[in-house]
Amino acid sequence: MLEKYIAVAKGDKKADLVLKNATYVDVFCGKIRKGDIAVVGEKIVGVGKYEGKEEIDCSKLTVLPGYIDGHVHIESSQLSPEEFASLIVPRGTTTIIADPHEITNVCGTAGCEYISKASQNVPLDVKLQLPSCVPATPFETSGAILNGKDTAKNIIKDYIFGLGEFMNYPGVINCDPDVIKKLESAHTAGKVIDGHAPAVYGNDLNAYLCGGITTDHECVTGDEIEEKISKGMYVHIRHGSSTQNLGNAKHMTDANFRRFILCTDDRHAFDLKDKGHLDDALRKLVASGIDPVRAVTCATLNCAECYNLKWRGAIAPFYLADLVVVEDLRAFNAKYVFKNGKLVAKDGKPLFDTSKRYLPKSVLNTVHLKDVKPDDFKLTLKGTKAKAMTIEPGGVVTGCEIVEVESKNGDVVLENTDLLKLTVVERHKLTGNIGKALFKGYGFKGGAMGITIAHDSHNIILLGDDNESMAKAANRLKEIGGGMVVVDKAKGEVHSLTLDIAGLMSSRDADGLQRDSKALIELAHSMGVKREYEAFMSLAFLSLAVIPKLKILDTGLFDVEKFAFTDINA
Amino acid sequence: MLEKYIAVAKGDKKADLVLKNATYVDVFCGKIRKGDIAVVGEKIVGVGKYEGKEEIDCSKLTVLPGYIDGHVHIESSQLSPEEFASLIVPRGTTTIIADPHEITNVCGTAGCEYISKASQNVPLDVKLQLPSCVPATPFETSGAILNGKDTAKNIIKDYIFGLGEFMNYPGVINCDPDVIKKLESAHTAGKVIDGHAPAVYGNDLNAYLCGGITTDHECVTGDEIEEKISKGMYVHIRHGSSTQNLGNAKHMTDANFRRFILCTDDRHAFDLKDKGHLDDALRKLVASGIDPVRAVTCATLNCAECYNLKWRGAIAPFYLADLVVVEDLRAFNAKYVFKNGKLVAKDGKPLFDTSKRYLPKSVLNTVHLKDVKPDDFKLTLKGTKAKAMTIEPGGVVTGCEIVEVESKNGDVVLENTDLLKLTVVERHKLTGNIGKALFKGYGFKGGAMGITIAHDSHNIILLGDDNESMAKAANRLKEIGGGMVVVDKAKGEVHSLTLDIAGLMSSRDADGLQRDSKALIELAHSMGVKREYEAFMSLAFLSLAVIPKLKILDTGLFDVEKFAFTDINA
Repeated sequence: MLEKYIAVAKGDKKADLVLKNATYVDVFCGKIRKGDIAVVGEKIVGVGKYEGKEEIDCSKLTVLPGYIDGHVHIESSQLSPEEFASLIVPRGTTTIIADPHEITNVCGTAGCEYISKASQNVPLDVKLQLPSCVPATPFETSGAILNGKDTAKNIIKDYIFGLGEFMNYPGVINCDPDVIKKLESAHTAGKVIDGHAPAVYGNDLNAYLCGGITTDHECVTGDEIEEKISKGMYVHIRHGSSTQNLGNAKHMTDANFRRFILCTDDRHAFDLKDKGHLDDALRKLVASGIDPVRAVTCATLNCAECYNLKWRGAIAPFYLADLVVVEDLRAFNAKYVFKNGKLVAKDGKPLFDTSKRYLPKSVLNTVHLKDVKPDDFKLTLKGTKAKAMTIEPGGVVTGCEIVEVESKNGDVVLENTDLLKLTVVERHKLTGNIGKALFKGYGFKGGAMGITIAHDSHNIILLGDDNESMAKAANRLKEIGGGMVVVDKAKGEVHSLTLDIAGLMSSRDADGLQRDSKALIELAHSMGVKREYEAFMSLAFLSLAVIPKLKILDTGLFDVEKFAFTDINA
Repeated sequence: MLEKYIAVAKGDKKADLVLKNATYVDVFCGKIRKGDIAVVGEKIVGVGKYEGKEEIDCSKLTVLPGYIDGHVHIESSQLSPEEFASLIVPRGTTTIIADPHEITNVCGTAGCEYISKASQNVPLDVKLQLPSCVPATPFETSGAILNGKDTAKNIIKDYIFGLGEFMNYPGVINCDPDVIKKLESAHTAGKVIDGHAPAVYGNDLNAYLCGGITTDHECVTGDEIEEKISKGMYVHIRHGSSTQNLGNAKHMTDANFRRFILCTDDRHAFDLKDKGHLDDALRKLVASGIDPVRAVTCATLNCAECYNLKWRGAIAPFYLADLVVVEDLRAFNAKYVFKNGKLVAKDGKPLFDTSKRYLPKSVLNTVHLKDVKPDDFKLTLKGTKAKAMTIEPGGVVTGCEIVEVESKNGDVVLENTDLLKLTVVERHKLTGNIGKALFKGYGFKGGAMGITIAHDSHNIILLGDDNESMAKAANRLKEIGGGMVVVDKAKGEVHSLTLDIAGLMSSRDADGLQRDSKALIELAHSMGVKREYEAFMSLAFLSLAVIPKLKILDTGLFDVEKFAFTDINA
């Protein structure tokens, strides 16, 4: 094969494809250059003067290396990998480092295998990290457990690129033996380990890094960034749907900018569709005053270097012909996208078939639940004072408020209060667990609503003011194999949307999902959910027991600051 | 093992070693910082506030990562790997990318194995490249041949780090099948390929790079550097004994400086002893106005990135504790050098035993020669006009001059001329080949002199004006198993110095070699070798048939520009 590349590069044979008279970004010298870009098979073979069997006039266009997303959970899009690719590839992303943390918490390594195999249907390189924290905490019931031994067994597999974000930083710092086993197995296998260490500094950070961890996407302050880079970490500039730190880019200097990379982490289908992916990050970075060539370097070469992706992330001979052709370096509108030398998207539309979806049984029908009855939702208090969870709009941190609440027949009375029952119904292991809490200020009335996305164990998170409606909601979610549901008691109606893949993602297309989601979200708001909340997605983090303050698990009410269960009775 | 690093990093246990109150270079942020550097075993575990079982006060000292030499032929030092290490480690070099091109041309892969095993005796990481061009040209007789098949067989070996500098750039550009086999085998093995492509530009450079070649240590102009970096190459800043391009450093910019690395290529024992190694390069770079932190980054992190040497080249948690402690960032005088966390040199002196030398039979007694007789050196011309080789002082490029010369008894008459016989006596395969040329202007008279270092096949290069002396010289070199020789006809004396390792290197210490070399060099000058030449080393390149213009091989006179043999008769 080398002969063919060399012969064309030398000029003895025509290239398969030439992007003629292109302006292109040279990420090595930080410059914008002009030339013909010659492609043979999946490789760029030269930049200079070339002729091709196919030629595309790029005299008014700018060519960039394909973007690399340094850290993303595909599941957060609520789309299948195929449909996810159909949204991000036309935006210019050609490689992602994907951590299937959510689906693995539901399906175990079958979730990893599914993402890997489904991704092979689309022109997107998915480098798959083995999730490191399944479950996220030992206090809840998840669909799967990956301990140190499981990690050692799986990390060596060819389709596993590295070990996913190590969120359990206390476990690293305190030398939890199972954590050490996970880290050591990744080292032995020579695989990269991603980090996640918000506000970890000083000697604690040194200890965390002695786990051999190399990246962080959680830092937000200049001091944190400076310390983490100086200690060898690559720092992500994140452009998720809710969690963003594009402002990190202003801490880039001439000396340290090679250690900054771009990622999206969690980005919803709606944002991917309406706003974009890394192209949107680049647009916003440039609008904020970051040099466009430097921004592109963060999205390409830097990320390739961080993850040791050789021959990727630049426009140069022998580099992979992953190319984005944009109109300019302000809007970053992708006119053409090439993956492995093939045109795969044009004018924002995918040119590849996304109708062929891989859907193994192992990720379907993942709501395992005995029939739930109205009485299962009775919440019995000892007295009239109880702890209630609260949540700020737009945030994931919860509060705790002591409230007065009456009871009748062994159940709380919610009429004429601003309170709801908030429950987590275990859906993996048929334990029958239902964790119960009071939830104040969300605004919903007259039935129940719920979703099978509930970080990170993804049980059913379900709220309501009527036990019968709550039982109906849970049973509907079981019936459809996961998704979102709203029960309107007055009308006697149950509305739902199916997330058939692990209860997290839809096997449908993004348009259909968006249309139906919007209708269900609108219904929830019409039943009182305050407009300042994201009706369903705000619920999805109420069970995430690693973020303060008060959280609800299938096993009960949890005080994150004390890292222990807590009594609802105040 | 991770537990131990983590516990110390966190501050729960004392470190093995702490460099207290150190000023240190942070190559990631390009800054100078202060702190305690804690070491456990072979790793740095943290920078901050630490206590150690052993503590060294560094309050008046600056700590740097150990230097990495990106490309070096140990053989050019004329020292064994052990003695070589004893000179460079105390200067601060802790890792080298070594290409045993010379010894492999003499001994085949036994030469590689020897360098690898001998290096295990010393605290220096030697990353060994498999030489790519053995022999350098197909026109001469070398001690070994490594063809594509041999390369494929050897490149996969664990002790082989990559493929050495691919000097045969015409072979790459013209798709020589054996060259392609070498390149492809290195790719398949996932190993790095070093480059060597002086003044290769444009589409030819693209073609060369499509061989998957990633470095170049031959460029000298700003345009060449810019083009090579923009096409993905790492560019070396070279500080050899005769070939230097420290000036390359002035072409570093904020955007491209990460692609510059330091190397020495060929550096003689005398220079290593008297001037230094990469420390001398750093000293000169800083004196020329290069920012010291940037210069250090080129000698450390950049090189580690280029060669994918993970956890090396920086002072940060989990990085290898290869550390140089200097008095300041101008003189770069190394007070302490640590390798894998152990103190291995102090105040410029090695603290390791260099008397234990690995000396396998496979690299000894490499002068294979039938007894040579005076008549073997007869040079018979057809007429009186002949081509003579000339050489400029300090250069390796030769010239061709047409001279008038008388003959008698079938041999040229050199009395009263400025001419010498210059011969290459084959010493590997008992072919009996003696290539003969005329050499003008060197100045030697009254005997013969020769050396078994003759690039790149390392036959015997031998000059003289007396056949009997020349035969004596050749036979002495055979007797001592290689080295340098001077025969004084008038005094009837034969003086020699032994290079017992492949006829290229001495198993003695540097001091002894330097003393005896100087005596022999002085003798050659006293017999007329003009002072502007390096008496022996200027000869060593007269057989290098890849550098213009006229060269002498064991097989005859060679016109490099025509890349063909040429008749001595003009």
